Amino acid sequence: MDIKAAIKQRCAGLEEVMRDFAMVGDEDIDKMILHPIVAGGKRIRPALAILACEAVGGDPKKVLPAAASVELLHTFTLVHDDIMDKDNERRGKPTVHSLWGEDIGILVGDALYSSAFKALSGLRATGIDDSRVLDCLEALIEANDMVHQGQIKDMIFEERENVAEDEYLDMIAKKTGALIEASVKIGCIAGGGSKEQVEGFKTYGKNCGLAFQIKDDILDLIANGDDLGKPVGSDIRSGKKTIMVLHALRTAEGEDIRTLKNIIGKEDATDEEVDKALTIMKALGSIDYAQRMLKDLIDGANSSLKVVEDSEAKDHLGGIADYILERKK
Amino acid sequence: MDIKAAIKQRCAGLEEVMRDFAMVGDEDIDKMILHPIVAGGKRIRPALAILACEAVGGDPKKVLPAAASVELLHTFTLVHDDIMDKDNERRGKPTVHSLWGEDIGILVGDALYSSAFKALSGLRATGIDDSRVLDCLEALIEANDMVHQGQIKDMIFEERENVAEDEYLDMIAKKTGALIEASVKIGCIAGGGSKEQVEGFKTYGKNCGLAFQIKDDILDLIANGDDLGKPVGSDIRSGKKTIMVLHALRTAEGEDIRTLKNIIGKEDATDEEVDKALTIMKALGSIDYAQRMLKDLIDGANSSLKVVEDSEAKDHLGGIADYILERKK
Repeated sequence: MDIKAAIKQRCAGLEEVMRDFAMVGDEDIDKMILHPIVAGGKRIRPALAILACEAVGGDPKKVLPAAASVELLHTFTLVHDDIMDKDNERRGKPTVHSLWGEDIGILVGDALYSSAFKALSGLRATGIDDSRVLDCLEALIEANDMVHQGQIKDMIFEERENVAEDEYLDMIAKKTGALIEASVKIGCIAGGGSKEQVEGFKTYGKNCGLAFQIKDDILDLIANGDDLGKPVGSDIRSGKKTIMVLHALRTAEGEDIRTLKNIIGKEDATDEEVDKALTIMKALGSIDYAQRMLKDLIDGANSSLKVVEDSEAKDHLGGIADYILERKK
Repeated sequence: MDIKAAIKQRCAGLEEVMRDFAMVGDEDIDKMILHPIVAGGKRIRPALAILACEAVGGDPKKVLPAAASVELLHTFTLVHDDIMDKDNERRGKPTVHSLWGEDIGILVGDALYSSAFKALSGLRATGIDDSRVLDCLEALIEANDMVHQGQIKDMIFEERENVAEDEYLDMIAKKTGALIEASVKIGCIAGGGSKEQVEGFKTYGKNCGLAFQIKDDILDLIANGDDLGKPVGSDIRSGKKTIMVLHALRTAEGEDIRTLKNIIGKEDATDEEVDKALTIMKALGSIDYAQRMLKDLIDGANSSLKVVEDSEAKDHLGGIADYILERKK
């Protein structure tokens, strides 16, 4: 089974569980809350939770509320992100705030946030013991905390001239990595994993999370625009301080550094200018540098899976790591 | 000891605990997150949690993280409310979004939200058993869910011509009542209260919560504007469907109903017009009607305290109920 089919199979029934925890029994409100849920998504986070549970010998059916929880939390962050980024469309559908205004967008996000915790506390009803449910909640709370820190930091970095590579890595580990890490960790805890397994899975999740964001950044630079669903090079124009931009600014000299500083962050840069920046970055090895980092992270993720016996679920976890490395969009 | 002194005494050390759970160890972020915490507030919710804990024989020191939690959650709702209401000042200080923009306002709110859960899970470290900590978390999650439903409903009601009284009561029970109810319930659970005590305290909290909002609405109509810190009658101009407005629209006839419909919701109504509406409402007994409802709620709250033995904490809980009834601002 290829990895997309495996994700789809594991996530059968997920949307229904998400709906059950999110709906409040009021037609007007439910219409708004369900909108971003039924819009779909890659469902990588819930798949990771379910596979991690399976890989430590847990019952995947029991962990569905936890899988719903991490996806609801992810959905909440997207609803608030779209307000901040003023994006009127996501996954080909109008965003919540573009339909009902920013105030409702804020509140629908807050409500989804709340339903993520409700879903996770729903683990209790499946017979998982209180101490493990509480461990799962703590993992979600910690991740959540990290996500907001990462987002605020990201915003602060946009205003700053200099950002060190380790600051950037710390920021994306929080902003994108923390919830992916928590998804795997929660699945492992709920599935009855040992402390050693939880630690191993944390490493797997952390590496996958970092890799996911770095791959996103690489795709923004070199993907085919049609595949990506957004114009290539938007990070160059917005001045986002990705690994590649930081590498280029660190290593470029003379004319190159002046050209880069001129183009990066220039909102109305022409396609030719973006191409020029990209050519310089390629010559400097900035993209290879990010690719190597990505490869190392995925190798690390795969090797940390040694904490569990071989199984179909373990294979799929490896498959997801490889998918992050190889995806084209 | 008067009730304000009792609240102050119980909440000594609260702000420090709130700060500890909210801070993330990053100077830039912490400055933003701490801003609405140090701005202060009535601290009624944490006082209720601490007093409820004491009243069932619990150790008030152990319940401080729970008290911090409900106040952090309350603070988060204010930060998002201020964005939605476009209020640039609260408690005499600039609001988060007026200082750093709406995007940061959304994220700081989200981060405070997260820290509320972090604080509550901090109960575990005080030695309270996992099952009670989880019960507390469930109470917070439920309340949280209610708050957002109430807020969304409130916004929907503003657009609707007709709102039934029970719909309005249900909305304020959620929007304002749920977190007050949860504060008492959480204090009682964490303090080791029995099921019967938890139920009794829920009633106390629910009634106080409803009463709190109805008193707010009454004050908006008849208080001294200087005491209130906002112009009297702003609810008339905004068209808010309070208990009194609903009563007046239900009972007025002929010329009166036309005058009321004309003035209520008229954003640029003159002071004379607001006075005119108020005079009609007084003549219809709409304010007396709300006062009676308020009195009944507070009587109900006080009588539900019979689930615990007499104590200083119980007296103070009664004092808070009476304070809600009698406050002038």
